[in-house]
Amino acid sequence: MKLWQVDSEFSASAEADLLNNSLPVDQRMNLVDVIGSKAWTKNLARYGILTKDEMDQMLDGLDQIQEEFESKTFTYLADDEDIHTAVERRLGELIGALAGKLHSGRSRNDQVATDFRMWVLGAAQEMVNTMEQYQNALIRRAEKDMGIIFPGYTHFQQAQPILLSHWWLSHFWAIQRDKIRLNNLISMTDSMPLGSGALSGSGFAFDRHALATDLGFAEPTPNSLDAISDRDFAVEFLFITSLTGTHLSRMAEALVLFCSKEFGFMQFTDQFSTGSSLMPQKRNPDMMELVRGKAGTLLGKLTGLMATLKGLPSAYDKDLQEDKEPVFEAFDTLQLLLKVCIQAIPGITVYPEKILNKMDPAMLATDLADYLVEKNVPFREAHHAIAKAVKVAEELNLSLQHLPLDQWQRIHPVCDDEILDLFTFERSIARKDSWGGTSKRSVTEQLAYAKRKLSA
Amino acid sequence: MKLWQVDSEFSASAEADLLNNSLPVDQRMNLVDVIGSKAWTKNLARYGILTKDEMDQMLDGLDQIQEEFESKTFTYLADDEDIHTAVERRLGELIGALAGKLHSGRSRNDQVATDFRMWVLGAAQEMVNTMEQYQNALIRRAEKDMGIIFPGYTHFQQAQPILLSHWWLSHFWAIQRDKIRLNNLISMTDSMPLGSGALSGSGFAFDRHALATDLGFAEPTPNSLDAISDRDFAVEFLFITSLTGTHLSRMAEALVLFCSKEFGFMQFTDQFSTGSSLMPQKRNPDMMELVRGKAGTLLGKLTGLMATLKGLPSAYDKDLQEDKEPVFEAFDTLQLLLKVCIQAIPGITVYPEKILNKMDPAMLATDLADYLVEKNVPFREAHHAIAKAVKVAEELNLSLQHLPLDQWQRIHPVCDDEILDLFTFERSIARKDSWGGTSKRSVTEQLAYAKRKLSA
Amino acid sequence: MKLWQVDSEFSASAEADLLNNSLPVDQRMNLVDVIGSKAWTKNLARYGILTKDEMDQMLDGLDQIQEEFESKTFTYLADDEDIHTAVERRLGELIGALAGKLHSGRSRNDQVATDFRMWVLGAAQEMVNTMEQYQNALIRRAEKDMGIIFPGYTHFQQAQPILLSHWWLSHFWAIQRDKIRLNNLISMTDSMPLGSGALSGSGFAFDRHALATDLGFAEPTPNSLDAISDRDFAVEFLFITSLTGTHLSRMAEALVLFCSKEFGFMQFTDQFSTGSSLMPQKRNPDMMELVRGKAGTLLGKLTGLMATLKGLPSAYDKDLQEDKEPVFEAFDTLQLLLKVCIQAIPGITVYPEKILNKMDPAMLATDLADYLVEKNVPFREAHHAIAKAVKVAEELNLSLQHLPLDQWQRIHPVCDDEILDLFTFERSIARKDSWGGTSKRSVTEQLAYAKRKLSA
Amino acid sequence: MKLWQVDSEFSASAEADLLNNSLPVDQRMNLVDVIGSKAWTKNLARYGILTKDEMDQMLDGLDQIQEEFESKTFTYLADDEDIHTAVERRLGELIGALAGKLHSGRSRNDQVATDFRMWVLGAAQEMVNTMEQYQNALIRRAEKDMGIIFPGYTHFQQAQPILLSHWWLSHFWAIQRDKIRLNNLISMTDSMPLGSGALSGSGFAFDRHALATDLGFAEPTPNSLDAISDRDFAVEFLFITSLTGTHLSRMAEALVLFCSKEFGFMQFTDQFSTGSSLMPQKRNPDMMELVRGKAGTLLGKLTGLMATLKGLPSAYDKDLQEDKEPVFEAFDTLQLLLKVCIQAIPGITVYPEKILNKMDPAMLATDLADYLVEKNVPFREAHHAIAKAVKVAEELNLSLQHLPLDQWQRIHPVCDDEILDLFTFERSIARKDSWGGTSKRSVTEQLAYAKRKLSA
Repeated sequence: MKLWQVDSEFSASAEADLLNNSLPVDQRMNLVDVIGSKAWTKNLARYGILTKDEMDQMLDGLDQIQEEFESKTFTYLADDEDIHTAVERRLGELIGALAGKLHSGRSRNDQVATDFRMWVLGAAQEMVNTMEQYQNALIRRAEKDMGIIFPGYTHFQQAQPILLSHWWLSHFWAIQRDKIRLNNLISMTDSMPLGSGALSGSGFAFDRHALATDLGFAEPTPNSLDAISDRDFAVEFLFITSLTGTHLSRMAEALVLFCSKEFGFMQFTDQFSTGSSLMPQKRNPDMMELVRGKAGTLLGKLTGLMATLKGLPSAYDKDLQEDKEPVFEAFDTLQLLLKVCIQAIPGITVYPEKILNKMDPAMLATDLADYLVEKNVPFREAHHAIAKAVKVAEELNLSLQHLPLDQWQRIHPVCDDEILDLFTFERSIARKDSWGGTSKRSVTEQLAYAKRKLSA
Repeated sequence: MKLWQVDSEFSASAEADLLNNSLPVDQRMNLVDVIGSKAWTKNLARYGILTKDEMDQMLDGLDQIQEEFESKTFTYLADDEDIHTAVERRLGELIGALAGKLHSGRSRNDQVATDFRMWVLGAAQEMVNTMEQYQNALIRRAEKDMGIIFPGYTHFQQAQPILLSHWWLSHFWAIQRDKIRLNNLISMTDSMPLGSGALSGSGFAFDRHALATDLGFAEPTPNSLDAISDRDFAVEFLFITSLTGTHLSRMAEALVLFCSKEFGFMQFTDQFSTGSSLMPQKRNPDMMELVRGKAGTLLGKLTGLMATLKGLPSAYDKDLQEDKEPVFEAFDTLQLLLKVCIQAIPGITVYPEKILNKMDPAMLATDLADYLVEKNVPFREAHHAIAKAVKVAEELNLSLQHLPLDQWQRIHPVCDDEILDLFTFERSIARKDSWGGTSKRSVTEQLAYAKRKLSA
Repeated sequence: MKLWQVDSEFSASAEADLLNNSLPVDQRMNLVDVIGSKAWTKNLARYGILTKDEMDQMLDGLDQIQEEFESKTFTYLADDEDIHTAVERRLGELIGALAGKLHSGRSRNDQVATDFRMWVLGAAQEMVNTMEQYQNALIRRAEKDMGIIFPGYTHFQQAQPILLSHWWLSHFWAIQRDKIRLNNLISMTDSMPLGSGALSGSGFAFDRHALATDLGFAEPTPNSLDAISDRDFAVEFLFITSLTGTHLSRMAEALVLFCSKEFGFMQFTDQFSTGSSLMPQKRNPDMMELVRGKAGTLLGKLTGLMATLKGLPSAYDKDLQEDKEPVFEAFDTLQLLLKVCIQAIPGITVYPEKILNKMDPAMLATDLADYLVEKNVPFREAHHAIAKAVKVAEELNLSLQHLPLDQWQRIHPVCDDEILDLFTFERSIARKDSWGGTSKRSVTEQLAYAKRKLSA
Repeated sequence: MKLWQVDSEFSASAEADLLNNSLPVDQRMNLVDVIGSKAWTKNLARYGILTKDEMDQMLDGLDQIQEEFESKTFTYLADDEDIHTAVERRLGELIGALAGKLHSGRSRNDQVATDFRMWVLGAAQEMVNTMEQYQNALIRRAEKDMGIIFPGYTHFQQAQPILLSHWWLSHFWAIQRDKIRLNNLISMTDSMPLGSGALSGSGFAFDRHALATDLGFAEPTPNSLDAISDRDFAVEFLFITSLTGTHLSRMAEALVLFCSKEFGFMQFTDQFSTGSSLMPQKRNPDMMELVRGKAGTLLGKLTGLMATLKGLPSAYDKDLQEDKEPVFEAFDTLQLLLKVCIQAIPGITVYPEKILNKMDPAMLATDLADYLVEKNVPFREAHHAIAKAVKVAEELNLSLQHLPLDQWQRIHPVCDDEILDLFTFERSIARKDSWGGTSKRSVTEQLAYAKRKLSA
């Protein structure tokens, strides 16, 4: 064996066990599994498969198991192949042979589909909450930075002046859409597969609507085959986390640049950047780089599960066992990214002076054209006039804002002294005053609208 | 140059033009572009930038351009860099210098974002319609095949008997979810970017709510920066088409197998399979293979645009020009796949006898266990009893359904002669009678429910 | 908190730590890290930064750490941020302040790039070995099943008869290519980044060629910037594992079908399928389904890292921390899949009789056409003749092989009684006798060639 | 029909034709198809299926078809389903019924696999050539800019000074690896499938080694089943183009930033950036943004085909028809991106003064630590000393390079006046003098090495 050899010999059957065993992953559904079993217990009693007394014993046992899960005192055994068998094995230890009645009329196929949906419903709701905290951080930032002038970019070239608050709020709306997507997902996932049996329905005439109500689902699924093989909710969860990851990545990329020496617009606190003992001036925006990098990883999880599903014939196949790990990991990853953003954004120091110093007055050129348009000059003609003005200013060795009025009038006769007042970023910003624009009035209105959306 | 060399030398600037020019792709938005410009014309007139008379001239010119697009008589020129400049160039030919006023207060950034949303809204609605035709085909198939017994599979092993109609309907519900997704997408895309200018808002105080109403949008976008750089609707369209493609692929994979000699359950008409003059018995299910294969291609389009977006800083970057081609192609591809399914499914011949001949009575084992459970035998004990019965039958060289009652009673004392009636697929199917199950009553109920959903 | 709520509150900085900390992942490189540090120690001594005595002390300390890693007695501390700092911290405990000299002239950037390459080199070699065991399993299967006739499929329709051994060997060649890819990867990865410093090279005039020799690398990297940011080897490793996964998936998909009741061609041993106590006849090919499903997951790992890399500017960015986890996971996954295949394939039971029973004589039609071609009938004319023969046979209610000679001669005058001998699968197979064909002679030749490749 | 409706009604069978017809895509293989048929003609004659005279007629006909392809005068008909049938149909027009002999012993399965390999071999070689032109552009840039000092970045923070030439060359090596990958691909693709028949081999005992030699392949494929279903070469081509796209994207991203106002380090010529008549100062680096964006699209093509392949059982399935379009598109895209880079890079204006002005002296801190290490101070102690120096300098309100010697000696007694000379970028760069480092001597050596690699 070479020094860096990474693997050793293998024996005959351990690998098959390792490949097949899903417990390391699916034990994360322990709570929803036991909650599901409690509802199932009541269902069996309602139908007479359990007596009232048997039901009570079973519920007591399941309560204890739930407590063991919550207090992390539950002991998994090497023979527990998945979370469902672990629960039933433990129940047998607690209440004896009666435990053997729990699985009546139920299959692992409909059970795991139900567990997984319950988990995703919980996770999606949790994520909506975290997203709202993130949106709050953006709103507070927009309020705090109100009035700070900032360069707006296209092609990462300075294009037009904006308010920094407008920039922060632009990220609010991307997440607002992601929240709507999660809420749509929640509403589409809110159907209960339980009672679909292995694939063809349950052999007992259970009232699945009542069972759904017990478990807090909006309705039972309408087709047992579809119910046990449908993993749309998992793949859609991965799509949303991947898209949110992309939204965070785009913001992170901008912040990384704004914190560079060349921009110098902002700085993270020490807590959310890593210094270098060697280069004391250095404050690497590691956190934002990791936010950016993990968006790629999230996309991989989506692609992976999509490719797995695409390869299946309809109905349940064991390949579906690949569904949970990416969902759990995507949830953990995105929660972490959101939380780090929530924590890091409030403490960012903004340097308004440095920003202003770097802003190019040429960003006002559009305003000059708009001025001429308001004087009834066709837009294309206005264009050419401004280009000419630039040339004249160059010949006179003046910057555009110092071009005297008579020159302007020679360039286009409609110009009057009003044009000399146009050369401020404030004025340019104030002009963008319609709904959604960057004027202070508009942004304030937008802020109020955002808050209403948040508390809705 | 070798014989199969695939490329020749290149000159200095043609490549830059080729890379930059988006007209071959974006001319597909010609109609929505001119419709958007008509609304913008009215907007300019409302604000006084155009006189009533100028507006009328401009609308006449745009009407003519629209007609040229609709009749496919519009001539694109080599210098037309994109669809927007092509329209403005043509307008100049028709109405002269006045055309130069059209672009007042507007930028290509908000214009293209608006055009693209209008196109996607139209495409999504069109696709919903096609999906409904597909669902109708499934419903008609379920009605036609009602009563045909079919093996239900898990792990592509025969598991439990079902009704073929139940199988057809399982595909109905997957598409039903996709339709809900498209409708959610429509509602999230229904915000108008126009009036966002290049990035910071329009320099004129237009009433964007009125403009949105004119163009048929539910509302204007609330943040100009977000409005010009948001392509969520494109990527979500690609996600939905990819997921629908996966749904079709899963069905197609099953149909390919059902049509194989080994299964022999079904056969496509000649129109939707390709024969072989050499092997006259052969009827390759090419169409279904292409449906299956193109689902992979659709996933690639999603991944590609996600990766492009993930690499961007916030705000508009030219990389976004990559957004349209995958969306147009995904629309065309999925429409084609759906239509081929719509056409191919009604003509499939089903062979109920061959199917029955291949069905394994062992699929009834679950029913035996359920029978014992109903007699109050704990499920795990019932399991073991059935396993024992199998063993006894083997020793007696009998198949399970011919095991005599006294043997059953020796295996478990609760058995009575009712057990001898269990051994039919019909009976097994009839037992799955709760909501969503495969009994004829349940499936009929499901069918009615599906029709209500469709006409809703 | 709802019962199935999946996440709790978070405090201020734990998240940043969690996001930043790479130890849980990169501790897998512990051995290569300490081996690298031993070579570095010698390098420092060669240059005089360490005395001979200091070198010896340091090597002793590092040897002990290596031993602790190998015996799994090394204790990681909560403050160890990554594997590099863990080693240096432990070295300090063992040899005191002298440990502070280890990092002279080295950066974590070149160190981690070197460690990771060493790990990948070891993993790739290990995987080549496993692949060869898998190829051996295929070869032994081909030898064992020599002579068994099997239907060859296209479009999953029976097309032409083949030898089963030919089918097993077809999978040999796919893996042979994957091995070549791994060997190419090894040769491209065999350049040492160490001595590239943080990004611009080391400040000391080390002889990097000598250092490379010490560490067993073929050469040092030629550009320090490229060396510290290049992760091509990681992404290429993921490509190869994903492609191999696809190769296994394609075989697994076929085996799943061959083991279905409808085919009934093969059966896995109990060890590599999962039975069902309920349905005693059922033997689910779970292992092959998991092989098939995990190929999708492997593709996701490739896509994820590619998307992350695509979003980077050149040079080292923290996003690169996402590189290791997918590589480690892909290695573990593919090793597991290969090993399960190695173990499962030898025990498969093949049912030659059942196979023959299902084979359609129409698969011989091509041979009839070839026969006519040999009699100088143009191929297209031969085509039509066979089609006509089929029709005639139908009218006479005969199967093709029972069509009498006079009928054949009416169909085409060149037919002689030789044609009556064509109707056996054996004869059809024997005719495919050129290199790469399915005749027994060809397959035996192919087998010998495969063995030579393997022992080369 | 709504105004923006994007699709109209469909009729019964046009869709099936559209889905099935591959001619619009595969006609790109027209030349290789006819070349393959010429070799096949000679093969048939060698075996006696064609007489010498028939061979000559057939070759004449094929020569004429080749000429029609080359002169673009070949007319495709609506009934031509793919390129193979188009050629055979045209051959029939030219030489009559004899054309019907061409397809003897050949199947479209082995024919298309051979054609596609020939095309990919040609495309890969062409791309290697283009890559070498791109490498030449980088080398010339490195020569031209030799001596220009540049900030080296990590985390997009200034880290250590480098030579700009070193930066250009870092991109050379990434492409060098891609070229090696393409050459490896060429060598793995250089096996001829022709003679594999539909799947089981040819029914005639052709000498496939001789045929391979005729067609310029290194060898015939060893297994007919594998030969007709293997598309590894296509997917590997997509992997390489995607990875090269990522390499270009990383460089493009850096160039976009270097050309921003905040950096101001470089500028593209007007030809390779797009100005704005409105904002005359603005020069958008559109070309580099498109290079960056298209890397995402290329990744999508890889993912798409991988997902399609992953979903297949072994052997030929119609899904494989999805293989060509992404390969052709990826070739065209990457060729275009490389060519634009080749054209754009030479004309970039670099501003050495602006660059120097933006460079932070704190980038020299590592050199200070190295200095102490050379004086035998343990590295960790050196670290702390530099940190202390920074603090002292701050207290004295001095920048680090103006700290007097006595202060340095108080910080660490080993300091002598040599330390005062360390504070230049030139000196820092000169110290990185080992192989692969950024010193002028090292970079010159690297340049020579790169040229040797290029001409090898």
